Amino acid sequence: MSANEVVTEGVEALTLTNGKDGSGDDMVATGVEVVVQDDDIVNPWSVTSSTDAGVDYDKLIKRFGSSKIDEELIARFEKITGKPAHHFIKRGIFFSHRDLHSILTLKEQGKPFYMYTGRGPSSESLHLGHLIPFIMSKWLQETFDVPLVIQLTDDEKTLWKDLTVEAAIKLSRENAKDIIAMGFDLDKTFIFNNLNFMGSCPALYQNVIRVQKCVTFNQVKGIFGFGDSDIIGKIGFPAVQAAPALSSTFPFIFGKNKVHCLIPCAIDQDPYFRMTRDVAPRLGYPKCALLHSSFFPALQGAKSKMSGSEQNSAIFLIDTPKQIKNKINKYAFSGGRTTIEEHRTYGGNPDIDVAFQLLKFFLEDDVQLEQVRVSYSKGELLTGELKKLAIETITPIVERHQAARKLVTEELVDKYMEIRPLKFAK
Amino acid sequence: MSANEVVTEGVEALTLTNGKDGSGDDMVATGVEVVVQDDDIVNPWSVTSSTDAGVDYDKLIKRFGSSKIDEELIARFEKITGKPAHHFIKRGIFFSHRDLHSILTLKEQGKPFYMYTGRGPSSESLHLGHLIPFIMSKWLQETFDVPLVIQLTDDEKTLWKDLTVEAAIKLSRENAKDIIAMGFDLDKTFIFNNLNFMGSCPALYQNVIRVQKCVTFNQVKGIFGFGDSDIIGKIGFPAVQAAPALSSTFPFIFGKNKVHCLIPCAIDQDPYFRMTRDVAPRLGYPKCALLHSSFFPALQGAKSKMSGSEQNSAIFLIDTPKQIKNKINKYAFSGGRTTIEEHRTYGGNPDIDVAFQLLKFFLEDDVQLEQVRVSYSKGELLTGELKKLAIETITPIVERHQAARKLVTEELVDKYMEIRPLKFAK
Repeated sequence: MSANEVVTEGVEALTLTNGKDGSGDDMVATGVEVVVQDDDIVNPWSVTSSTDAGVDYDKLIKRFGSSKIDEELIARFEKITGKPAHHFIKRGIFFSHRDLHSILTLKEQGKPFYMYTGRGPSSESLHLGHLIPFIMSKWLQETFDVPLVIQLTDDEKTLWKDLTVEAAIKLSRENAKDIIAMGFDLDKTFIFNNLNFMGSCPALYQNVIRVQKCVTFNQVKGIFGFGDSDIIGKIGFPAVQAAPALSSTFPFIFGKNKVHCLIPCAIDQDPYFRMTRDVAPRLGYPKCALLHSSFFPALQGAKSKMSGSEQNSAIFLIDTPKQIKNKINKYAFSGGRTTIEEHRTYGGNPDIDVAFQLLKFFLEDDVQLEQVRVSYSKGELLTGELKKLAIETITPIVERHQAARKLVTEELVDKYMEIRPLKFAK
Repeated sequence: MSANEVVTEGVEALTLTNGKDGSGDDMVATGVEVVVQDDDIVNPWSVTSSTDAGVDYDKLIKRFGSSKIDEELIARFEKITGKPAHHFIKRGIFFSHRDLHSILTLKEQGKPFYMYTGRGPSSESLHLGHLIPFIMSKWLQETFDVPLVIQLTDDEKTLWKDLTVEAAIKLSRENAKDIIAMGFDLDKTFIFNNLNFMGSCPALYQNVIRVQKCVTFNQVKGIFGFGDSDIIGKIGFPAVQAAPALSSTFPFIFGKNKVHCLIPCAIDQDPYFRMTRDVAPRLGYPKCALLHSSFFPALQGAKSKMSGSEQNSAIFLIDTPKQIKNKINKYAFSGGRTTIEEHRTYGGNPDIDVAFQLLKFFLEDDVQLEQVRVSYSKGELLTGELKKLAIETITPIVERHQAARKLVTEELVDKYMEIRPLKFAK
């Protein structure tokens, strides 16, 4: 393979397009990941769709060259793990993958692998959408009994946002508290922020250099849409997100073993790992497997994802019950009709209704969810009632999280972030 | 200043030219630092000249926008330090500077500063030319009584050469032994290799990110001639060479003080520090001062510099007396005439004679050197006799170095490379 081919794994139609204003200034934000026909924009820095139903994920799978999580895969998953798949998988919230079959085969054969996920700490408190990859990772970790490494990309946020190094480190520590509050097993979970861990573990920088030696500017230009006026920190950063997918980045966990890696993440992060999957075999490592989630909708609707920097688009994990109630009642985009009479006659549309989407993510009871869907579609359930149900489902989840987070001490954060061996079948 | 102006400090005629074959493939090697009129190429990866007398340094000063070290500066230097300037300075081997007056003013006022120099470990043994910045640094350190940090850029060599991370780390440790053998004061000298130190001191990576946030690809393209097909590691690297010029990279030495920095180096490294001098004030630091040396000629003549990767161009510090004798006799480019008769009649040309240049660097006695110059110019001294004098001057220096290097234990290397406070008037 030539240097210019290597990072386009499975990606169709690599058409470089400019931003909507035609100025080219949005190049970074739009890049090559634009699904041009649909006006869906999906890349690590921007996700928007032109339709109320959100991004067309079937088309995205085709463009990205990943695979759909189908019934057959779910059946194999359940057979090998011996338990029903998580509702995120059954409901298509995690809808796409790369090489998940290989991971299942490892599990079948009793061979080791580990999991890697992460977060860019751009706000002090997480919102509901941020929980998705962590809920999935926790469930998978418990199901597979494997170690998990969690990268907080405070360096990325320093480079991309108007944020100092000090402020980004502070945010990553606050975010770590939210993650810890979710109850990850301390014996099996290592949390690190790049701005500290890079300076605490020579293996990370050494792998960053190895990856940076395999990737040209042309390639990151093609994958991420970087341009000549971008700062050099952005250009080098993808290697920092790639390195934790190489097990030797964590010698204190894996020694010198080259261990397979599974990455649950939102699909906008896929460009990083397409690059990683190209580089890994050249460095003698297996390609990382991926499990891709769809996006958590903004309260205003699935045209954009819930954003930590837009207060009213998101339910934050620090919101009070009153705030949650008000935000859902005031902002949650409704798929209902304009009058009660119309609604009773024609029914609502749950596919575009944000309150229903919240239930799809957080109401675990499949039977109840289906009842709600049917009842809302028929017009029996009104928008106000659906919102009430969403509020009643979300509020205790947030309250339980707040209670758990209160128990997370600075000492406990230090423990999760301490460089140490994890429990791991070697 | 606009983003695109900032890093061109004092550089005239920023003409981007291709390699000599016109293919553009040599872009990195030639870049914008080409002094076009003279065919002199001076950048961190390539130094060549079209004339036997070597690079035209007066023109280089003009192009780079640095300042000549003139009689007045030397006089001030001697007045403030209370001792005669080193022969490297008096003989114009260190010929150019930036802001040396500011450093002298600090010394005059009893205010602190530190020194920073470095080396790219591309070969197991150093050669004579590699000694120059270290001889100068050691003398300056003793003269000013200041701490010195020495960066070994094994990451750079991994990125630029066909060298693994492991091999580069090994070379940096071997090179550290040669540097230690020169007798630097352990209490005042910290030696580090990037591939280990980056993973041992969070402050380094944090400053790298701060610098990388200030510099665009357009800028490094302009300064270093990087192109789209260059690997992203090269594009990010200049920030790693810049960071040690910010005192907060070494919190264990300087705490949070923003201390001035003086960098003795060969002038081909100036592009890195022009970039650093632009960035530093934006991060709240003083601009680093510089002391630039000319290049140590290859045995074949001053058209190129002595190179560690070309065995016969260099006298290595591991060479035996016999090898030194043979190399000088066989390869050292002569400024003498073709026959003894012609030589006696017309005289030799010391300016292009490599044996004489070796004496200019290493024969400390000014009177004797001048006698040799006159006598050779007149044709009284023959080439063979001049070479003999060069051999007699160089051999004991190399032998003393070898004896000192034998005493450098692994434990001593660890001590110089240990993260620790240095003696420093805060």
